Amino acid sequence: MELGLYSFAENTPDPLNGGRLQSPAERLKDLLEEIELADQLGLSFYGSGEHHRPDFAASAPVTILAAAAARTKSIRLSTAVTVLSSEDPIRVYQQFATLDNLSNGRAEIMAGRGSFIESFPLFGLDLNDYDALFEEKLEMLLKIREGGKVTRPGSAHTKPIPGIAIYPEPVQQPIPLWIAVGGTPTSVARAAYYGLPLMIAIIGGQPRQFAPLVEFYRETAEKTGRDPKALPVGISSHGFIAADSQDAHDIAFPAHSEAMSRIGKERGWPPTTRAQF
Amino acid sequence: MELGLYSFAENTPDPLNGGRLQSPAERLKDLLEEIELADQLGLSFYGSGEHHRPDFAASAPVTILAAAAARTKSIRLSTAVTVLSSEDPIRVYQQFATLDNLSNGRAEIMAGRGSFIESFPLFGLDLNDYDALFEEKLEMLLKIREGGKVTRPGSAHTKPIPGIAIYPEPVQQPIPLWIAVGGTPTSVARAAYYGLPLMIAIIGGQPRQFAPLVEFYRETAEKTGRDPKALPVGISSHGFIAADSQDAHDIAFPAHSEAMSRIGKERGWPPTTRAQF
Repeated sequence: MELGLYSFAENTPDPLNGGRLQSPAERLKDLLEEIELADQLGLSFYGSGEHHRPDFAASAPVTILAAAAARTKSIRLSTAVTVLSSEDPIRVYQQFATLDNLSNGRAEIMAGRGSFIESFPLFGLDLNDYDALFEEKLEMLLKIREGGKVTRPGSAHTKPIPGIAIYPEPVQQPIPLWIAVGGTPTSVARAAYYGLPLMIAIIGGQPRQFAPLVEFYRETAEKTGRDPKALPVGISSHGFIAADSQDAHDIAFPAHSEAMSRIGKERGWPPTTRAQF
Repeated sequence: MELGLYSFAENTPDPLNGGRLQSPAERLKDLLEEIELADQLGLSFYGSGEHHRPDFAASAPVTILAAAAARTKSIRLSTAVTVLSSEDPIRVYQQFATLDNLSNGRAEIMAGRGSFIESFPLFGLDLNDYDALFEEKLEMLLKIREGGKVTRPGSAHTKPIPGIAIYPEPVQQPIPLWIAVGGTPTSVARAAYYGLPLMIAIIGGQPRQFAPLVEFYRETAEKTGRDPKALPVGISSHGFIAADSQDAHDIAFPAHSEAMSRIGKERGWPPTTRAQF
């Protein structure tokens, strides 16, 4: 088992500090210090999310990870997640291949359809294509990731590539690629089908509720001829660590509640109460 | 007058070292050391080019610059150039805004149509749209760079943006934006029209041959209501500095000749001779 951290570089008014809001520069400065510390303490993994909203400072996660690469030695650097549906797989791969070189082989791509959907109107995409966009771009990214000259006819949502290799070559061949899911069984089946590691985002609920999803992943992998034992499974969820459990609750609750209630308003979740927390 | 450096992270077999070729990771490691040294020595500017070929390690320049931001204090960090014609102006801006935050206000965008054209087939673009792509994407980038909510109807080569702001907000408002030209008068006129600083790439020839272009830029700026004195002009050209002129020639010629003759084969230039060099 490996332990890591991820962050969306959320920028929440700090209720313990008079509601002060950091500038994006301050927020990213803190984030980089956090990644540097995680590396020094021997954690395995740091992931940066991707958001396109004023309350998050990470819209270009690989740009952030590249700065982190220059300040760390061992920790693996990943997105959490790259919203592949609204990205150009060629640009994604070029950035990760560059990151992989800058970090001497510590880059990992984590691709997902996105829990938030703000990237769709921003990049002129139709939410009706939510799944087709991901599927076609994942196929394109997988082809690019094989290395060498890429020949693809194109599809509804991807352009053709007429026998061109993508540069620079990464250190890791191939760069690890995870599929991140929120709980949709077809997404889990897709990861299994392609033989890709699975990351389950647990935004709410208990980890044990997701065990059947992992079962389903491993069964599907086996049915499609993959060795389930060779396929890592990860979970990511909210966490906060302090001297003791009471401290952790007291310190984390105000900002957690502020952020979750704000986002909940958009997404139809009830306000976060202390009891529920 | 300010002095700076730029590099395409070219990876040329080193004729002084048995024709050895560095890996992209080695090449980028050296490049970052070079940027760090340039910063320590007080140079004003470092620019990374963008290429999509095996003989260059910089296809994702802002990813490289982000790593450089973490290792430098004062030097301004720019592309040289971002081939805007084949880019998504929103992604470009997000990456530069992130870089600007990571470097505490040291990012500069340098946009050009591209001297090399390898990005066109790679990203499924038609060379017949060479100028229209640049013009429309420049207009989009200028609109985004103003900050606040962006409303754009879209165009032949850009998608609409329906009243959405782009995040994160940068430190510099706006992020400096240069137009880089190779000598095309209409490109010079475009920079003047938009009141944008001009960078002239001198790949061959004497700087004095480009003086009329600068005259034309300043005249056009004045005619379109800009103050030419407020508009910086830069030139970039090949250079190599050693203890004396003879040393510089002897050290630089083999690799210069190798690279220019290789590229010249594709572009119809004659082989580079020592006399010409």
